[in-house]
Amino acid sequence: MRMYDLIMKKRNGGILSKEEIDYLIREYVEGRILDYQMSAFLMAVYFQGMNQEETLAMTQAVAHSGDMVDLSAIEGVKVDKHSTGGVGDKTTLIIAPIVAACGVKVAKMSGRGLGHTGGTVDKLESIPGFQTALDRQEFFDIVNKTGLSIIGQSGNLTPADKKLYALRDVTATVDSIPLIAVSIMSKKLAAGSDGILLDVKTGSGAFMKTVEDAIALAKEMTTIGKNAGKKTMALITNMDLPLGYCIGNSLEVIEAVTTLKGEGPKDLTEVSLSLAAHMLYLAGKGRVEECRELAQAAIQDGSALERLIAMVEAQGGDASVIRDTDLFEKAPYEQALTAEKSGYITAMDTEGCGIASSMLGAGRETKESSIDYTAGIRIKSKVGDYVEKGQIIGLMYASDEKLFAAARKRYLEAVTIGDSKPPQQPLIYATV
Amino acid sequence: MRMYDLIMKKRNGGILSKEEIDYLIREYVEGRILDYQMSAFLMAVYFQGMNQEETLAMTQAVAHSGDMVDLSAIEGVKVDKHSTGGVGDKTTLIIAPIVAACGVKVAKMSGRGLGHTGGTVDKLESIPGFQTALDRQEFFDIVNKTGLSIIGQSGNLTPADKKLYALRDVTATVDSIPLIAVSIMSKKLAAGSDGILLDVKTGSGAFMKTVEDAIALAKEMTTIGKNAGKKTMALITNMDLPLGYCIGNSLEVIEAVTTLKGEGPKDLTEVSLSLAAHMLYLAGKGRVEECRELAQAAIQDGSALERLIAMVEAQGGDASVIRDTDLFEKAPYEQALTAEKSGYITAMDTEGCGIASSMLGAGRETKESSIDYTAGIRIKSKVGDYVEKGQIIGLMYASDEKLFAAARKRYLEAVTIGDSKPPQQPLIYATV
Repeated sequence: MRMYDLIMKKRNGGILSKEEIDYLIREYVEGRILDYQMSAFLMAVYFQGMNQEETLAMTQAVAHSGDMVDLSAIEGVKVDKHSTGGVGDKTTLIIAPIVAACGVKVAKMSGRGLGHTGGTVDKLESIPGFQTALDRQEFFDIVNKTGLSIIGQSGNLTPADKKLYALRDVTATVDSIPLIAVSIMSKKLAAGSDGILLDVKTGSGAFMKTVEDAIALAKEMTTIGKNAGKKTMALITNMDLPLGYCIGNSLEVIEAVTTLKGEGPKDLTEVSLSLAAHMLYLAGKGRVEECRELAQAAIQDGSALERLIAMVEAQGGDASVIRDTDLFEKAPYEQALTAEKSGYITAMDTEGCGIASSMLGAGRETKESSIDYTAGIRIKSKVGDYVEKGQIIGLMYASDEKLFAAARKRYLEAVTIGDSKPPQQPLIYATV
Repeated sequence: MRMYDLIMKKRNGGILSKEEIDYLIREYVEGRILDYQMSAFLMAVYFQGMNQEETLAMTQAVAHSGDMVDLSAIEGVKVDKHSTGGVGDKTTLIIAPIVAACGVKVAKMSGRGLGHTGGTVDKLESIPGFQTALDRQEFFDIVNKTGLSIIGQSGNLTPADKKLYALRDVTATVDSIPLIAVSIMSKKLAAGSDGILLDVKTGSGAFMKTVEDAIALAKEMTTIGKNAGKKTMALITNMDLPLGYCIGNSLEVIEAVTTLKGEGPKDLTEVSLSLAAHMLYLAGKGRVEECRELAQAAIQDGSALERLIAMVEAQGGDASVIRDTDLFEKAPYEQALTAEKSGYITAMDTEGCGIASSMLGAGRETKESSIDYTAGIRIKSKVGDYVEKGQIIGLMYASDEKLFAAARKRYLEAVTIGDSKPPQQPLIYATV
């Protein structure tokens, strides 16, 4: 087998066999296929696509390029969730405790934030003492004891994906739906859960800008999941405005806790309940409507919040900040964002809102940057709200006053104010 | 400017500016753009193409990446010829002397053979003592004195093309018409002639398998040439069977000499006269029909053959083998190829014929392989001929008897014998 022939075959619209795809991934990881051939292949895939058999074979080859996590030491059905990334998306912190409170184990590996989107691991690390780097045995023990654990990626998981992603990132081959699906699903297969719920975000703050693209990606991923023998579903959710009212690490933990107390914002509560209901459904807890009632009950009776507290304690965190979120360290500086004119907020460039928060210190510019857990933005007015000129539409938090000017400019550029109230958008577009 | 953005722009069907293309070529040659980005770009070009402005800009950038030959030291109009490569294509050895005999200077840099196609430099080196590595001044002096000189590529000509070609060769991006046109035309621009005649071969022994592709490539190249201010024309010629009856280096020189004596095969004579006539036309020697008469006269009066002899002597070669081709060294072994059944030869896989000759020692497997100048095939029967089973249809020549079996198999596989006489194909399909 020669890589040249595989590039030519894909370039000419051919279908690669499982053996050819196994060869491609194995030889690439081992350095016998070089980057310049792989990048030509990836560009050919961008134009010619891949069929179901090819994406399944590639997902499995990438998954098996490193450790395959064996969750059999954890009793019961394990359901994983993946979000394609958004701004203000703290749903994992809400739904993992809900699902655990309903008796379904959550053994979840999460990522860090990069660019305009946040990461669950960073958010959890804003809780003093919270450890996200646990060894496999501690991780399993905590899940068995508390019903849930969320840690960072550990071990040698999907090295092929890391290498492929780094190459795609510099060769303009990131936004290929089959390649995105392979990247996400290979990590999910390697992570070992029985069921997988995908939260595919769409809109100005999401990677998929249109509902059509989001549905296409969702279909590609659920097909891979099902063909790989995993129960898999996807929700297409709105990321045309930030989810909830907080962007920034400890700010988002606080909002998640508020939501688990039943006092969260409507949009965040609604999306979280839907996601939790579908995770429970995948775990066999009944019909989706029944599962939604179970999820709601876990908020009302406080059992979900108790699960979060139990996990925080088990992972070395100071749970007093969860019990009383006023105890979270505050940013030393605060500054108001005010409306530049009167009217309705007709649109929010959500990526711009995320970047503004990142500029305050809440995000990373490069993988090596450090994060200010207290920094971020508390939104006061969102799309559809009427605001008067000069009215406070948000609050910025930072550890350095000098950061406010640029972040303010970026945020206000992202907020469009017009004359008429915009039509309300759905929170959830579709279930795939 | 960032290479990432240029890849993305081309991938999305955008048009690159001259500045962007200059950046692309300059930074690639200087090693600041790496192969893995360039190969993704080239694959994007394969799918999205390039427009006239882009191919012109890229051709000029590649041409200027190295030395630009200045032919002004040679008096008069200089016309160059380029063949896209074929089997048995010894036309340069015939038409350069014809054109020189008609008073138009030919200062030509030629290539070596690789794969199934031969190279003019290798053929000339089968003449004892013939030097193809001359310095610029010797080259000019010989052209001024004898009217023609043919040498190998010297100096630092189009380094960007060498680097790009090596990358395309391993990333399945060779057969892109704009990229082929850029590669050929950049070398022609750097070589400095005033006019350029392109011989675009089509058929089973050519790179362009269909007449449509050959015409498309010819149009792309003549457009670049004209936009770069050069008189440029192309002939689309038949390579669905070998040109003439000899394949192999000294065998082809012998056939060229025979043709210059007016005793050559009809197909080779006809194609050579047409090419010579168009070169003379480009040099302003009159209408094409008039130029053809000039060319014919140069054969009839022996002046073309005298030009070849003068060039061979000027470049250190032993011209006695030209005056009497029986003096050429012979291959120690000869073996007949016989028809496996009776019938008409309906087709010859010309690439296969070229490979068979190469297997006898006439060609190179890699750039480093050495060549047996005496090896090759003398064809006795071609497409359209009726042959009896067991009839000799060709003779193989080699320096090692062991080479015959595999070459025979390859050659006979390439020759199709059928029941009915095939329709005659044109020698020249079109003029562009």
